[in-house]
Amino acid sequence: MTANILFAAGEAQWRVYEAPLRRALARAGVTATLATDLAPAEVDYIVYAPGSAVQDFTPFTRARAVLNLWAGVEKIVGNPTLRIPLARMVDHGLTRGMVEWVTGHVLRHHLGMDTHILHQDGVWRPDVPPLAPDRRVSVLGLGALGSECARMLSHLGFPVTGWSRSPKEIGTLRCLSGEDGLRTALAQADILVLLLPLTPETENLLDAARLATLPSGAVILNPGRGPLIDDAALLAALDSGALGHATLDVFREEPLPPEHPFWAHPRVTVTPHIASETRPETAAQVIAENIRRGEAGEPLLHLVDRDAGY
Amino acid sequence: MTANILFAAGEAQWRVYEAPLRRALARAGVTATLATDLAPAEVDYIVYAPGSAVQDFTPFTRARAVLNLWAGVEKIVGNPTLRIPLARMVDHGLTRGMVEWVTGHVLRHHLGMDTHILHQDGVWRPDVPPLAPDRRVSVLGLGALGSECARMLSHLGFPVTGWSRSPKEIGTLRCLSGEDGLRTALAQADILVLLLPLTPETENLLDAARLATLPSGAVILNPGRGPLIDDAALLAALDSGALGHATLDVFREEPLPPEHPFWAHPRVTVTPHIASETRPETAAQVIAENIRRGEAGEPLLHLVDRDAGY
Repeated sequence: MTANILFAAGEAQWRVYEAPLRRALARAGVTATLATDLAPAEVDYIVYAPGSAVQDFTPFTRARAVLNLWAGVEKIVGNPTLRIPLARMVDHGLTRGMVEWVTGHVLRHHLGMDTHILHQDGVWRPDVPPLAPDRRVSVLGLGALGSECARMLSHLGFPVTGWSRSPKEIGTLRCLSGEDGLRTALAQADILVLLLPLTPETENLLDAARLATLPSGAVILNPGRGPLIDDAALLAALDSGALGHATLDVFREEPLPPEHPFWAHPRVTVTPHIASETRPETAAQVIAENIRRGEAGEPLLHLVDRDAGY
Repeated sequence: MTANILFAAGEAQWRVYEAPLRRALARAGVTATLATDLAPAEVDYIVYAPGSAVQDFTPFTRARAVLNLWAGVEKIVGNPTLRIPLARMVDHGLTRGMVEWVTGHVLRHHLGMDTHILHQDGVWRPDVPPLAPDRRVSVLGLGALGSECARMLSHLGFPVTGWSRSPKEIGTLRCLSGEDGLRTALAQADILVLLLPLTPETENLLDAARLATLPSGAVILNPGRGPLIDDAALLAALDSGALGHATLDVFREEPLPPEHPFWAHPRVTVTPHIASETRPETAAQVIAENIRRGEAGEPLLHLVDRDAGY
């Protein structure tokens, strides 16, 4: 039997993903027709990305699943015409890249690297940084990305607190949940890492009131989703000196417009949405594995809970 | 019985170490007289640092060991009057600090952080860095520091090659040795970490000829010893573009003089000997443990091989 797979993630992605997907499908033993222009009624699986031309899923009468190419699903999860299972991307390449970005920037701030990178002025400043056990890190969001980052930071010796909406247990990691847990996680975050999904509950989670509960001089890393932070409140907290620095990889508008105050702010580092890039080779393997599962009648991986929104 | 311990590491260190040492000795159950001015013939143990006023060990007729406060022993190991065991410092605080510095700067260069830290100019540069498995790291020197750094970098996913003068086996780490091994380790080092001891054989190990064998654009991290590198050859290789960057924590002269060309070179980052700082609390525990062992007739830890020079 041949699976008909509609690649509905746009022309630019098609150029990147066609070859890796064909390779991964062949390796998974899936016989497939993979194309960008199949008749809706004949489509079995839809490979999807935000901004796709497909917004109405109604004509896809026999489709079994939508396979999202990205980790974030906030732009599709509320689509009322989507009545079939939706799988998010959990790409080990993406996870690895996120762990590298988060670990690298935590160490950068922990070691005070910017002083040396920015000020090669002949002044010997032998201030030895504290060791990792004396730098508390909180990770908000304990999905595939957050939990792997928390694990790596713990391995490096940082005392890590993880927080998620609902209770979780992850090895020996200190996991908190709920409103009380959030208060504790924020109050003890010398470095705060945001890896929450974007939902109506998490939008502007870091507002002025919550930012004010962080330790003095705290550093925020946001490789998650731009709208998790109230931008104006963040800028105010940085201006007042209450916060030490923010390194941001995601923004409400991307590319971040050149006139946005984040660019010029001495306590903000903008990175251009590079932390969480899906990697074509590894992502294609995840898509192919889910199609193999669908064809074999096995449960799909990484299904989205439509009610929770992620 | 009371052990007489001469603290011969200088006044400045005495101010830092006296309290931690007294605490650590008490905790180790050692009854001791700890002072900076004992009669040589009554001294049982000498706590030592380079630059000490003690240069002639002959009068210390009953001393059982010299306990070096630092990891490097090149300034004492060749002293002909030293005929008792010499222990180097292997401080888990120092090791941890080194792992943090090396891991942080490897990730900094791997992720291309400097572009973002130095150029917050409103230009969105979405160049996604390769993943760790595609960035080869070689660590020269597989003592306590080198092997722990190699382990952590492997854990992060980098393909790590370790090199030491004599063959070593460290878990699943790829360990090379000898001249042939060095050629391979250098030729495959996108990032090269220098953690060798300073000996007559390792001085200027990275000379013009060996620097020329590194991959184009390679990055050098030197948190080991300044004289491992021929400074002029390094500057020439950076000027020509053959090497991408050098991040140096140790120098032939420290503090590095303000007029030294390393400061102004755009491809050099100077850090002020902060990677390998001995931590008083943890170092004091190592000293105290060795004195406890000496008093109990147990073998000392971290003894230096005087012939090898480290």
